[in-house]
Amino acid sequence: MKNIEHIGIAVRDLDASCDLYEKLLGTGCYKKEMVESEGVNTAFFRTGEHKIELLAATEESSPIARFLEKKGEGIHHIAFNVDDILVEMERLRQEGFVLLNETPKRGADNKLICFVHPKGTNGVLVELCQDVK
Amino acid sequence: MKNIEHIGIAVRDLDASCDLYEKLLGTGCYKKEMVESEGVNTAFFRTGEHKIELLAATEESSPIARFLEKKGEGIHHIAFNVDDILVEMERLRQEGFVLLNETPKRGADNKLICFVHPKGTNGVLVELCQDVK
Repeated sequence: MKNIEHIGIAVRDLDASCDLYEKLLGTGCYKKEMVESEGVNTAFFRTGEHKIELLAATEESSPIARFLEKKGEGIHHIAFNVDDILVEMERLRQEGFVLLNETPKRGADNKLICFVHPKGTNGVLVELCQDVK
Repeated sequence: MKNIEHIGIAVRDLDASCDLYEKLLGTGCYKKEMVESEGVNTAFFRTGEHKIELLAATEESSPIARFLEKKGEGIHHIAFNVDDILVEMERLRQEGFVLLNETPKRGADNKLICFVHPKGTNGVLVELCQDVK
């Protein structure tokens, strides 16, 4: 586990939240991207060496739709950079953490990703991210 | 608003969570500090240029005790570095954000801090941090 790659924030209205976060962070959104496999639209902001990722659901079965229904808008996950996601997944399994993905899957922003179950991390949904070369 | 200074995570048992986060992050806790004014015990981990701060309540009136009661364990706030907290507070007020502190107060880790009301930031509690020289 290296540095924080991004923090994901679940929002209901991506365009309205983009305007809000441009004002809050004092920097513009530099990319919007739909991730069909997750049922989300995303918008990215740079804050130092890491990013803020706003996430809005595109369908009712999206994990973000379920999060919004259960908890409302707010911080959804923290993503950490890893050099080798398979090595890090195995290390975490050995430490007793439960992974939500058996194998890495494709995420936004050209990454291989895997989530760690929040029940084992004090309620924090942790994402591992490896750059795809 | 510059880079992320730290992410605050509300936990019930600081020592148990310290052990857990040492395993998760693969790095040791480098500092524990009590912040009496906030009624919290804190533990810090470095992850790249930023920190993870675990927060446990020391009294029932602590904001962390109220958060745990309402939402359970999980991510509590995102803190951003600012060069001049008074300038940034005024900029955010002008943009229509509501600040939870009229004037900056002393936080953990030798910082001047101010919180932004989460109702105006899609449910995200944002902290501004300025290093005290």
